Amino acid sequence: MKALRFDGTLQLLHDAPLPRRPGEALIQVLKAGICNTDLEITKGYASFAGVLGHEFVGRVIESPDNELAGRRVVGEINVGCNACTVCRAGDSRHCATRTVLGIKDRDGAFSEFLSLPTRNLLAVPDSISDEAAVFVEPLAAAYHILDQVSIGPSSRVAIIGDGKLAQLVIRVVTTTGCSLTVVGKHEAKMEFARSLGARLLMLSDVSGESPAHSPDQADVVIEASGSPSGLQLALKLVRPQGTIVLKSTHNGATPVEMFPAVVNEVTIIGSRCGRFAPVLELLGSGAIDVAPLISFRFPLDEARLAFLSAADPAALKVILEIASSPMSA
Amino acid sequence: MKALRFDGTLQLLHDAPLPRRPGEALIQVLKAGICNTDLEITKGYASFAGVLGHEFVGRVIESPDNELAGRRVVGEINVGCNACTVCRAGDSRHCATRTVLGIKDRDGAFSEFLSLPTRNLLAVPDSISDEAAVFVEPLAAAYHILDQVSIGPSSRVAIIGDGKLAQLVIRVVTTTGCSLTVVGKHEAKMEFARSLGARLLMLSDVSGESPAHSPDQADVVIEASGSPSGLQLALKLVRPQGTIVLKSTHNGATPVEMFPAVVNEVTIIGSRCGRFAPVLELLGSGAIDVAPLISFRFPLDEARLAFLSAADPAALKVILEIASSPMSA
Repeated sequence: MKALRFDGTLQLLHDAPLPRRPGEALIQVLKAGICNTDLEITKGYASFAGVLGHEFVGRVIESPDNELAGRRVVGEINVGCNACTVCRAGDSRHCATRTVLGIKDRDGAFSEFLSLPTRNLLAVPDSISDEAAVFVEPLAAAYHILDQVSIGPSSRVAIIGDGKLAQLVIRVVTTTGCSLTVVGKHEAKMEFARSLGARLLMLSDVSGESPAHSPDQADVVIEASGSPSGLQLALKLVRPQGTIVLKSTHNGATPVEMFPAVVNEVTIIGSRCGRFAPVLELLGSGAIDVAPLISFRFPLDEARLAFLSAADPAALKVILEIASSPMSA
Repeated sequence: MKALRFDGTLQLLHDAPLPRRPGEALIQVLKAGICNTDLEITKGYASFAGVLGHEFVGRVIESPDNELAGRRVVGEINVGCNACTVCRAGDSRHCATRTVLGIKDRDGAFSEFLSLPTRNLLAVPDSISDEAAVFVEPLAAAYHILDQVSIGPSSRVAIIGDGKLAQLVIRVVTTTGCSLTVVGKHEAKMEFARSLGARLLMLSDVSGESPAHSPDQADVVIEASGSPSGLQLALKLVRPQGTIVLKSTHNGATPVEMFPAVVNEVTIIGSRCGRFAPVLELLGSGAIDVAPLISFRFPLDEARLAFLSAADPAALKVILEIASSPMSA
């Protein structure tokens, strides 16, 4: 089968073996999305070597669970050992020996087929298109913020970033009815947030010693820019005793002045993967529309070009079209 | 009156005016303690110019509140505007226009007299000596951790640091019955923690790529070392979804790799000043003994020498003896 492998360089394999793991389902990948984490991995993040990709929709080809056979599915990407105390408590996302699809010790979704345990799979309702289903994994990561922090109509929230992940966070957070400010640097990408009722501030206007616009300090600041300077800006935007959610990972160390976190007693919360079920509901009901966020579509044969496109600061989501589904556009 | 002023350099004034503020109490300072924050201020932290010092016990000389006249008191150091929403909610510690004794826009305690509003003052029971009362402010800062984070007998807690503040945090945290590890670098200071039942690890053994001792990952890591590298070590010691409490402030930016906080969904909580009342109880009942933590005592005339002594890595608390109390040793 074809698969896009990273091992210091990106390489499209044409004769990769089928990924068969005992007790797991074999899934034909229909479409997959390129995430900033994939781009960071190609810069050395997570020291991963293998087939990349963790945002996908697929069709179950073989499964130990008859109910899923032939179904269109999305899959949670963390596979725990299923035996340690963390896994037995029901949260394999933090299993110390977990594998992670396309990120840690497990080949990923930029491939014609992938393998995952059936307990990781959720059937996709017919009301959700293949393209929308590709967004379930990153949308769940965005939705996870609402599981970690209380945000409601009286909350003042600021989101730093206007990229792929930030756009999803913006869509999820606006469902709470909060007062939202988005701080970004790409005018074209910021436009996507305008229609959602967010107040838009350009990064250049809130940075520096004498910012042109001093936004009201936020109860919650969500750092989703992927920029090393995001935390420092978040510490400036958050109110005393407020909360910063760190949503994006990047490689390497960044100089940070942490004393404002101590003096203002700020809480900083790391936030990674989330539950798929609430997101399938939001997409199924049409409460969130992700279609405008797709910048480019490429076949798997053009995966390297797809990566170059995804790295363009002007681009949002890039989709790899790997197989066609009879069930959905 | 005499007062130790900092304005780029430390200077002992002999003819400073009495600090009288309308509506506030005038307090004769009996004893005061030197804190690492005082040392950081002399390196530029908080851009403060004025009389230093915020840990003190004193006697009320003049007061709008008759009940306090003549009483021995300690004082909460944050003075809010008493009008904004933060102050009206009862927490002047985060008032945007607050003054802070010896730290922000208000002369401090290394002085024969100081001024504070009566609402900041708490009478000291006779069972607490002057020297012990000097520890109320930093002990309250340590105790504040227990107001912010749930720590009980089943908690695994690690404290980074063996200095002045860390020693108080150790004493407060051991009252919870938790399993405690202390990571420090001064063997003599580490000895103070041994009798409290803590597991002791030398910093050199847990740092680096292949640590000699890999401590069990902690539920809660308290960074109280004042070292710029403390946060990075804390991120290494804390378990996934665990909590880091940042207790110490230092000047300047430090390179930090934040991605482990995201991947492991760690919560980082800044922690500053705390409530005095529970600490007066702990000291009054003898549950916490601070006497062994006093390294040196100096008269105010030798304040500059006292500062040099306090900056010695081998020293713990240095006390300035400013006036004698008829009520207590």
